[in-house]
Amino acid sequence: MPKSARIDASAASAEDEVTRAVLRRVEESSEGRMRELMLSLTRHLHGFIREVEPSEAEWMAAIRFLTETGKKCDERRQEFILLSDTLGATMLIDAINNRKPEGATESSVLGPFYQEGAPAYDNGADLADAATGGERVLIAGRVIDLDGAAIAGAELDVWQTAPDALYAAQDASGDSFNLCGRLTTGADGRYWFYTRKPVSYTVPGDGPVGAMLSAAGRHNWRPAHIHFKLSASGYETLVTQLFTDDDPYLGSDAVFGVKDSLVVHYVATDDGLRLDHDFVMTAAS
Amino acid sequence: MPKSARIDASAASAEDEVTRAVLRRVEESSEGRMRELMLSLTRHLHGFIREVEPSEAEWMAAIRFLTETGKKCDERRQEFILLSDTLGATMLIDAINNRKPEGATESSVLGPFYQEGAPAYDNGADLADAATGGERVLIAGRVIDLDGAAIAGAELDVWQTAPDALYAAQDASGDSFNLCGRLTTGADGRYWFYTRKPVSYTVPGDGPVGAMLSAAGRHNWRPAHIHFKLSASGYETLVTQLFTDDDPYLGSDAVFGVKDSLVVHYVATDDGLRLDHDFVMTAAS
Repeated sequence: MPKSARIDASAASAEDEVTRAVLRRVEESSEGRMRELMLSLTRHLHGFIREVEPSEAEWMAAIRFLTETGKKCDERRQEFILLSDTLGATMLIDAINNRKPEGATESSVLGPFYQEGAPAYDNGADLADAATGGERVLIAGRVIDLDGAAIAGAELDVWQTAPDALYAAQDASGDSFNLCGRLTTGADGRYWFYTRKPVSYTVPGDGPVGAMLSAAGRHNWRPAHIHFKLSASGYETLVTQLFTDDDPYLGSDAVFGVKDSLVVHYVATDDGLRLDHDFVMTAAS
Repeated sequence: MPKSARIDASAASAEDEVTRAVLRRVEESSEGRMRELMLSLTRHLHGFIREVEPSEAEWMAAIRFLTETGKKCDERRQEFILLSDTLGATMLIDAINNRKPEGATESSVLGPFYQEGAPAYDNGADLADAATGGERVLIAGRVIDLDGAAIAGAELDVWQTAPDALYAAQDASGDSFNLCGRLTTGADGRYWFYTRKPVSYTVPGDGPVGAMLSAAGRHNWRPAHIHFKLSASGYETLVTQLFTDDDPYLGSDAVFGVKDSLVVHYVATDDGLRLDHDFVMTAAS
């Protein structure tokens, strides 16, 4: 008969002994990756509990929070991903899964508003439809490798907010791919297109995660940014975002997506705003 | 403008810098208990992620697991409490909130099957109705303080499984308080009552937590036990369980409720089984 799950009353600390009983049970029962995950989860979950010593009322509040977070999820809303985002977990997992050598463009998260199948455009096209207001910008640059050599035929899949702070994926009233599009670099690795300067927007604040942010004194704004997903044969796919350097939420992104190297400056020209930016991709492993 | 949430690309480790950005944001925004909880949660959640380095697919599996756990909850089923129970968190919080001096009866969790308002019985009564099978047992003893002095007028609120492995709270077909009852000690601190030997049973296995236990090679059995909630004027309320020493699941309780000091032996007598057990209560603080 296994005895691992029993708690020995004679232990110096009854609390430590609870944790040890769980670890022994996992060690005796679980295998492979599940064993590794459960041992680590137990140590960190119990470590958190021992550190903050929740009252029984606080623990029930946590149970209710998690339950409401699950209840809030449907086909259009994933409140647990939002929780992961606002706790920085999503960006941490992105960093772990996208380690890049020095000089490569850093990654940021895909986010919930990416849609596959955006229209393909020639370089020089305008991604905004005629009704779209906002500040017109030219974005141009090269896609290169770590040695600075041009990557020809790289595809840039682009998406961003409209001036009303909605993504095309959110806005049932408009063009389902407004301000979205795919560009392809020529032999010189160059790309260029027109769009509108992106604006700041809020992540959903009407659910349990919004209530958590409020209770923690945090807002639910994301600083303005444009999303890019770059793919090229022989290279690692690069998912990233470029953040506008004059945004008031740049230092307090609700989902921690901002990396210093991804903050860019739009230059005023006689022909409107202009952003020059090169992307550095890494070879596929 | 706060800069705390930005991730500095020049940091030695981009992953550590994600964690530091979240901690800085909480430090600058949150106050009091919420600040303390969020800082500790961030450190331990990120510590878990850094230790196991989940793939993006694994993280999405975790998101799906939590979502399904929330969806499984309704008025009769609380899958997040079951998750807390099966990860040992409930017992750890019970231990933290019920620290007792040496010699006091140890606590165990209340569980989901306690019902207020069980009938009051005189000592010597049988808590089982006439239709209840199983092995008849006499349970008797004293309720005393740390000095061994009798506590008169202590109330013992008792509940347990029937021989069919159901609690009265689960069994819509039977007496809604079968095998439940309240006893009160006399001037000598003594109590005694008849019941049936409790049996092992399973916690719900048809939801996401059941799937997690299976994936971890764990079963969902609880060893046989009787629940007691003791209250007496001037003393801390004591919630505990007494576990049957010949139960095959004593060493592998799915919810880690077993403490060595709570394991008891039923003695065979000419008049059926008998258990003698004293409870030691602590003065209210």
